[in-house]
Amino acid sequence: MSNIDKLSIAAIRCTAIDMINKAKSGHPGMALGSAPIMYALFKNFLNSDPYDPKWINRDRFVLSAGHASSLLYVMLHVCNYNLSMDDLKQFRQLNSKTPGHPEFGHTDGVDSTSGPLGQGIAQAVGMALAEANLNARYPKYIDHYTYCLCGDGCLEEGISQEAISFAGKNKLNKLILLYDKNDVTLDGPLSISDQSNTELRFKAENWNVLNVEDGNDVDEISSAIKKAQKSDYPTAIIIKTVIGYGSKNAGTHKVHGSPLASDDIKQLKESFEYNYPEFTIPQEVYENFKDTFVKRGFGDHSNWLTKIEKLKSSNIMDYKTLFSNDVSYMMSEDFNDFKVGSIEATRKSSNKALNYYSKTITKLIGGSADVEGSVLTKIDGSEEFTSENYAGTNVRFGIREFLMASIANGILLHSGLRPFVGCFLVFSDYMKSAIRMSALSNLPVIYIFSHDSIGVGQDGPTHQPIEQLAMLRSIPNLNVIRPCDARETYAAYKQALLSLKTPTAIITARNESPALESSSYDGVSKGGYIISKEKERVDFTIISTGSEVSLCLKAQELLLKDNIDTRVVSMPSFFNFDMQSDEYKKEVFGVKYCKRIFVEMLSSYGLNKYAKHTMAIDHFGNSAPYEDLVKYYNYTPESLAEKIKNIIGKEKIDD
Amino acid sequence: MSNIDKLSIAAIRCTAIDMINKAKSGHPGMALGSAPIMYALFKNFLNSDPYDPKWINRDRFVLSAGHASSLLYVMLHVCNYNLSMDDLKQFRQLNSKTPGHPEFGHTDGVDSTSGPLGQGIAQAVGMALAEANLNARYPKYIDHYTYCLCGDGCLEEGISQEAISFAGKNKLNKLILLYDKNDVTLDGPLSISDQSNTELRFKAENWNVLNVEDGNDVDEISSAIKKAQKSDYPTAIIIKTVIGYGSKNAGTHKVHGSPLASDDIKQLKESFEYNYPEFTIPQEVYENFKDTFVKRGFGDHSNWLTKIEKLKSSNIMDYKTLFSNDVSYMMSEDFNDFKVGSIEATRKSSNKALNYYSKTITKLIGGSADVEGSVLTKIDGSEEFTSENYAGTNVRFGIREFLMASIANGILLHSGLRPFVGCFLVFSDYMKSAIRMSALSNLPVIYIFSHDSIGVGQDGPTHQPIEQLAMLRSIPNLNVIRPCDARETYAAYKQALLSLKTPTAIITARNESPALESSSYDGVSKGGYIISKEKERVDFTIISTGSEVSLCLKAQELLLKDNIDTRVVSMPSFFNFDMQSDEYKKEVFGVKYCKRIFVEMLSSYGLNKYAKHTMAIDHFGNSAPYEDLVKYYNYTPESLAEKIKNIIGKEKIDD
Repeated sequence: MSNIDKLSIAAIRCTAIDMINKAKSGHPGMALGSAPIMYALFKNFLNSDPYDPKWINRDRFVLSAGHASSLLYVMLHVCNYNLSMDDLKQFRQLNSKTPGHPEFGHTDGVDSTSGPLGQGIAQAVGMALAEANLNARYPKYIDHYTYCLCGDGCLEEGISQEAISFAGKNKLNKLILLYDKNDVTLDGPLSISDQSNTELRFKAENWNVLNVEDGNDVDEISSAIKKAQKSDYPTAIIIKTVIGYGSKNAGTHKVHGSPLASDDIKQLKESFEYNYPEFTIPQEVYENFKDTFVKRGFGDHSNWLTKIEKLKSSNIMDYKTLFSNDVSYMMSEDFNDFKVGSIEATRKSSNKALNYYSKTITKLIGGSADVEGSVLTKIDGSEEFTSENYAGTNVRFGIREFLMASIANGILLHSGLRPFVGCFLVFSDYMKSAIRMSALSNLPVIYIFSHDSIGVGQDGPTHQPIEQLAMLRSIPNLNVIRPCDARETYAAYKQALLSLKTPTAIITARNESPALESSSYDGVSKGGYIISKEKERVDFTIISTGSEVSLCLKAQELLLKDNIDTRVVSMPSFFNFDMQSDEYKKEVFGVKYCKRIFVEMLSSYGLNKYAKHTMAIDHFGNSAPYEDLVKYYNYTPESLAEKIKNIIGKEKIDD
Repeated sequence: MSNIDKLSIAAIRCTAIDMINKAKSGHPGMALGSAPIMYALFKNFLNSDPYDPKWINRDRFVLSAGHASSLLYVMLHVCNYNLSMDDLKQFRQLNSKTPGHPEFGHTDGVDSTSGPLGQGIAQAVGMALAEANLNARYPKYIDHYTYCLCGDGCLEEGISQEAISFAGKNKLNKLILLYDKNDVTLDGPLSISDQSNTELRFKAENWNVLNVEDGNDVDEISSAIKKAQKSDYPTAIIIKTVIGYGSKNAGTHKVHGSPLASDDIKQLKESFEYNYPEFTIPQEVYENFKDTFVKRGFGDHSNWLTKIEKLKSSNIMDYKTLFSNDVSYMMSEDFNDFKVGSIEATRKSSNKALNYYSKTITKLIGGSADVEGSVLTKIDGSEEFTSENYAGTNVRFGIREFLMASIANGILLHSGLRPFVGCFLVFSDYMKSAIRMSALSNLPVIYIFSHDSIGVGQDGPTHQPIEQLAMLRSIPNLNVIRPCDARETYAAYKQALLSLKTPTAIITARNESPALESSSYDGVSKGGYIISKEKERVDFTIISTGSEVSLCLKAQELLLKDNIDTRVVSMPSFFNFDMQSDEYKKEVFGVKYCKRIFVEMLSSYGLNKYAKHTMAIDHFGNSAPYEDLVKYYNYTPESLAEKIKNIIGKEKIDD
């Protein structure tokens, strides 16, 4: 190792330690242990331009072990990204550019929000998939590697297996996983919880596996990365490192997640012969990266820009495609050819809408977790994404829901494509953390969740969602849309496709519902609207979503016979409705809180925001034909009408 | 294969098909394909007593691929469990004993609720762990195998990897996984989504792997099971089967999940030479199982009963331990030695409470997903559960949250022990589906979730829960308790330990809170109670939970200075509170809906059930020291007081 390598790595390590020390919080263990890996990668390989960190053909880097954020921030700093020494000093402070875990969109050069272990690997698979697809479609313009640095913890998480298996099956050979194998986790040596043969595990999934015995040997690491670049399979480089290298507690879990003691820092810097004041990096280190990383990225980016300018003049649509996740310019007109009263399950309308919009929006890519035939996520006439045909856009995710959602995140982190993914609503449970990551990272993933109530029928309580709608609605920045008919379903897709910063969950039913006369595109974008007005005066307002809306309309008719005049509100999206003015909301409801009922064939949890009364299911379901269940749980126009009459009868005594 | 084997397997297959046909719903594919596996297992190996299906020393059987329920029900029927031919005819009908997926506690002989793929394997690992622990403690009385039948789908799910890895590490050699490898999933051939080398994958995790080339060969299957029983490692028997064997569509995904056509059923029965009317099984088949399964089970159970009677007379405590999940007879008195005003984070109180109760309740077993040092889940003085010491009760689950929760389910499905498992609240996301399974299966798992708000501080938004409390509270039959101080934490444990049918999530904080004067054990069991009364009249009621309660008490003091007289209600458990009488609830609130505010440092989602107003956080968090965040988000007594004053000021114009 040359002197400049030695000095640079010492600078990186010591500055990361200074950051953690000043913040009195952070994770020195991995920052110290994997600094040479990051050094080798950034100095010798990573193609990226610090002056245009969003350059679409850059190599991607995902820090799956997000707790090593201090290390990443130092790297970005020395590589001339817009991250000053003052920013490093603000590590983990309020509204700084250097939060505790890396946040996409918040800090230049951060390609992914990470922290929840394992998901970074899956996101990287998504990026590699996006690259493979775009490379097949635009070989001249998209051609880069995706690197991911993970730790032991990432590989213990089940999602890592889903990711490894999918990447191997699809031969995503431009994916290079740098596995920082320090054999220590938060609670102690890795061996207390794990004795996997990781090499064998990767080989079982068709990966190329390389070993680096000394994680401090930059040359050995570099030579492995060079080999990996030429592989026909995804590559795992297993790099043996020492957690907290340089600290007195090196090699133990004591050094994982708390700042080092001051005497330890002192001896550490001495052992690295790093004789600079805190937060000081000598000029030659910056020069080192200018001569390598910065120069290389600038050169590659310049060459690429020359090529892309030609594309701009020859094919503006393709050009635009590569530069944004926006699809508004490809958007079809509203589809409005619905036959009122015609019966169709919204899962079928969903497939039609998906196919309708995909005719003009060519950036769509997606599929389901092995339930294509039920959730109906196929784009007709499109090809399958396989290792023989990366240009295909129908993806077979396998029975790997969590991975599927993380891949969608990775695709949007990459940009250039718009992913949609589907499964049964009840199995959104498996994906919860990834859905949260979409919302947290402002990634407009389109989730399609079918089989949206006890309407699932005979598969029974394990397959019948009850609380999943509440779970999804409670996630900040997730637009959950539960359309009541075909028109609202098309409108939901329009909303989802036009969204740039908010993921959307489109909730569809297995059971059928009629196309309604007054359902509305615009109503969906407002979140809630009057779908059936009262006759003369509003005695009571019935609010509902999904296939239950048509039931409410029938109850409205029944009630009118008893001279109870009601209004029915369809409220497909709480998210959109909450953004409307107080005046609009008041106008839509028409009556005060205690004269409203919310009707859904799922949990009441959360519905009391809009109505005092609810007709809902606050227990697990039952295995029976749909028609029997509906009667058993009293989801009939008659019982709803009866319920409302009872409420009105005793309303006076209520507060 | 003998004639009786042939006839029996044909009877099993054809009756399963009759069930699916009559129900017009179900999954013929696996029922047909893996019938010989089930036959071999039940006839030759499984030790269980149909007349006492809860016998604790029975072999366990988990059908991880729960969609093959028809097959399991037929097996239980022919094996003389309390499941009549009429019950089989009611397959998938309302309130029948034969729901779409097997439900524990609902049908005799069903050892586990299954359906969500992959979790059955993890539950089986939990059962094997329970057996290993109880066997180490009571070798004379507990000594049995755990069998699990899984399909390709189970193994694609990430949780399977967590399970395989954990079982291998802990050498759970009495776990035998029967892998029905039919190479077909719902959407098509397995190869469209997966090309794993499964044998290698198991070997990488220290499993014994056996192959059965012909899934119709009962002798080959039996000989493999025999070998597996002698292994020092968990065994995977990879059995090549044909999905929908006998159907015209055998070997394809068409036969996975819909009833067969009537002509297909006809030719299928002919090909099996099964010339009996629908739902008819010849007597010799019943005799076959009487001579084998029933006789063996009866004999083994009788011998065991003789032994256990001796235990009853010699050690009634151990005897009781083995016969129930009830621990009320081991319960300590309420701990009440709290110094009012002394400061302690509830995560620390949680550890003290756990240790306090575990002194007398010796059935506790558990741990964390590699965050023991943070969530504080260790029982002091107890040993670690390892392959060298199965009697240990502190379990190292590794960074495998989902598995951890499923193992806890498996332990309770086994019975004899009471599991507790912990991780950060935000990572309950990873476990959602397993938590739901606890609730659905009536398993009183104790979940310990710490770091319960933006109080997490510097780790930032990926680690700060916002909507997780809402997610958990929305699960039916889950008691979520968020204690405000040490006393409420002890009370939460008491509740959790006394629960027999309801899992409990105890939510604790990283940030500190004082021991309050009026906090109460009894209040926790009621879910909500007045923790600080108004001075003279109730102008307004402040409802809160967790560490925010003490903030509300300070606001109460401030408001009183402005002559606004408020009441503070601590509401640690919505679940318990909802079960109280309307009178009690009204009494606790003291004022009407529009004069109540709910204060939590997480999402407002769901809080409007109890209060019109909320002080909550409906966006993702921020990385900064806790003290800075609290100020930034206005969680101060002053701002709460101000907010309430504003509400009171404009209350008149509200409805």
